[in-house]
Amino acid sequence: MATKVNDAFTIVPDGSVTTPKGFRAGGLHCGLKKTERHDLGAIVCEVPAEAAGVYTLNQFQAAPLKVTQESIAQGGKLQAMLVNSGNANACTGQQGEDDARAMRAAGAQAFGVAEHLVGVTSTGVIGELLPMPKVLGGIEKLPGAVSVDGGDDFCQAILTTDLVKKEICVRVTVGGRTVHIAGAAKGSGMIHPNMATMLGFMTTDAKIESAELQKLLNDVTDSTFNMITVDGDTSTNDMVVVMASGLAENERLTPEHADWAAFKAAFNHVGEYLAKAIARDGEGATKLIEVTVANADSREAARAIAKTVIGSSLVKSACFGADANWGRIIAAVGRAGYPVKTETVDIRLGDIVVLEQSRPVKFDEERAAEYLKGDFVLIHVDLHMGEASATAWGCDLTYDYVRINAAYRT
Amino acid sequence: MATKVNDAFTIVPDGSVTTPKGFRAGGLHCGLKKTERHDLGAIVCEVPAEAAGVYTLNQFQAAPLKVTQESIAQGGKLQAMLVNSGNANACTGQQGEDDARAMRAAGAQAFGVAEHLVGVTSTGVIGELLPMPKVLGGIEKLPGAVSVDGGDDFCQAILTTDLVKKEICVRVTVGGRTVHIAGAAKGSGMIHPNMATMLGFMTTDAKIESAELQKLLNDVTDSTFNMITVDGDTSTNDMVVVMASGLAENERLTPEHADWAAFKAAFNHVGEYLAKAIARDGEGATKLIEVTVANADSREAARAIAKTVIGSSLVKSACFGADANWGRIIAAVGRAGYPVKTETVDIRLGDIVVLEQSRPVKFDEERAAEYLKGDFVLIHVDLHMGEASATAWGCDLTYDYVRINAAYRT
Repeated sequence: MATKVNDAFTIVPDGSVTTPKGFRAGGLHCGLKKTERHDLGAIVCEVPAEAAGVYTLNQFQAAPLKVTQESIAQGGKLQAMLVNSGNANACTGQQGEDDARAMRAAGAQAFGVAEHLVGVTSTGVIGELLPMPKVLGGIEKLPGAVSVDGGDDFCQAILTTDLVKKEICVRVTVGGRTVHIAGAAKGSGMIHPNMATMLGFMTTDAKIESAELQKLLNDVTDSTFNMITVDGDTSTNDMVVVMASGLAENERLTPEHADWAAFKAAFNHVGEYLAKAIARDGEGATKLIEVTVANADSREAARAIAKTVIGSSLVKSACFGADANWGRIIAAVGRAGYPVKTETVDIRLGDIVVLEQSRPVKFDEERAAEYLKGDFVLIHVDLHMGEASATAWGCDLTYDYVRINAAYRT
Repeated sequence: MATKVNDAFTIVPDGSVTTPKGFRAGGLHCGLKKTERHDLGAIVCEVPAEAAGVYTLNQFQAAPLKVTQESIAQGGKLQAMLVNSGNANACTGQQGEDDARAMRAAGAQAFGVAEHLVGVTSTGVIGELLPMPKVLGGIEKLPGAVSVDGGDDFCQAILTTDLVKKEICVRVTVGGRTVHIAGAAKGSGMIHPNMATMLGFMTTDAKIESAELQKLLNDVTDSTFNMITVDGDTSTNDMVVVMASGLAENERLTPEHADWAAFKAAFNHVGEYLAKAIARDGEGATKLIEVTVANADSREAARAIAKTVIGSSLVKSACFGADANWGRIIAAVGRAGYPVKTETVDIRLGDIVVLEQSRPVKFDEERAAEYLKGDFVLIHVDLHMGEASATAWGCDLTYDYVRINAAYRT
């Protein structure tokens, strides 16, 4: 039943955030969304789990993010993670912070754990106060809604304009023991590096300490979640949290462990899978675009150039229109803020070479258009300057993006 | 017939780049555009004019820009400025540079002036070689096409996806003499600070030396052309060139001159008018958006924040949809890369206050929607931190932007 993608790890079919040992999850409708869809969810662990988190760099960081950071800072552990959709509890001042604390307190009471073991997060409209009676009423009912089969319900509870749920679970062997790593995410709009309106929840039964987990999460976020963009807008609420139950009973993982590389590869796969799923399901998107920049003279330059190309409205529109307009790609490369050799750039669309040594190559326009019509487009840029590379993901810019965002609140 | 806008200067009705003394202009169809529209134009001066230029910061600067820079560098003067639309002569390697030089040589011969008195520029598709027989054939005919009444024909010749021509002329008194300053521009897509696919041509009969003119142009570009964005993409071809004939016979203008401030105000007005006209006519735009950032702690911060807000796809979509979604505005403020006081931000849409001291204000949603439906939207952000301010201009993001850019080449 399982798919082996490489020697390091295996994908668990139909796996979810509750596949790692010790986790339950679920969701319910408490009244924040207008329709009867889930708008409140939780992941709960049997034991206090080692925890780590990464948060938006937007200065107007939403209240719940502050509260979650406080919880993790206190002991490096979380036992319950609560999330609501439909209201971001951002730009809501002191009342918003009080509300986030009240959510945490209610979660602690509902699940019978200490407050500092509870994290909270919110996604939705900015600047409106949470309707606390609905939220608190919902939290009271959450313990009855979580189960080992509740991964799917949890995924539903975190969606806003997302069209599909995003979840994955992999397994990897650590010191002879089977360890699981799973994740669920929401994305869709306001998606840009530095944590966009993107929430990621990862669970694992690996035994690993909070400090190591945090370093690993930072690394992996840098090359996965922080390399996607839907529209260049960075949300106030973005965050990825990981909880490690330790119930796989492996020898404690550290970078010195023989199986660290395999564990890291598996962890990275979960991050990359979720990041790509968010990009592919960007608001109005019809396709996933992957931009690889090869042979840059620094990793920083490769990242910046990949992100500039993937973020270009003109490149995104051309992909939507299946137009092999590589001039827009090179224009984006040239304005990314890092020096490039203007005479040595190659560009490929899939395997179709369109630019070689910065000079146009005659290519089959029809074949290129056919390729660009697909649901996956690779834009490969080779700078021939050094040895650094980076990959970024995004989506096309479509009529539907405009339609969705012209009237999001109405 | 003239409109006085302030004490410094007066707008000349129906003025064009040929209103300042000594200038002729015109345009014709040489075969670069598929339809019979003008695609080649020139501005010519009776005498070698003092000249200054600003150029794209995109590293893949197009060949004609290099050639024009060389011309101006040689003696600080230009007598003829040639422009073609329909082909950008960018990313065309050595052949492209040879072609730009051939255009310059042909222009020099046609108008009987030295080569270093000729500038050339191109706009259109990137990466295709110019069909030189057509271009050179057209240049031969240009002397018969330029006249003192040819300002309008010139404007037509520089348009690509622009819907309207953009020109203005003002007059100002310098030491008792009447001086004119005029400008014409094209814009539309790939419009972003640092000179987007934007061409600006300014003429004046003022007596002023090239070095002073260059400093003035740099200053004015910084607060006008470099403060507009349509889509965040910076073209390879952007440039603004100004030619000063000196035929107004005023006392030579320097920053020490009593009328320098009036002249600068007039010059700035021409730049700002053209910049706003470009933003308003951005691809697919239905309205001009103006973002003012007040009381920032540095001019740099004010500029960056204004440009981030005006560049946000979500803010632009919300304006198109007449949705007073100020959360997107504050999210953009928070990710602009400059520290702000997160507790002291006010936001107004026109005169409708929506956020005060970073807290939502109850406002009349219907009135706000009505305001946003107009063809001009002001977004005012007050940071309450210092005394610096900046203004940026842009347009809404619409279905038509996507339509135009999904199939630009086809």
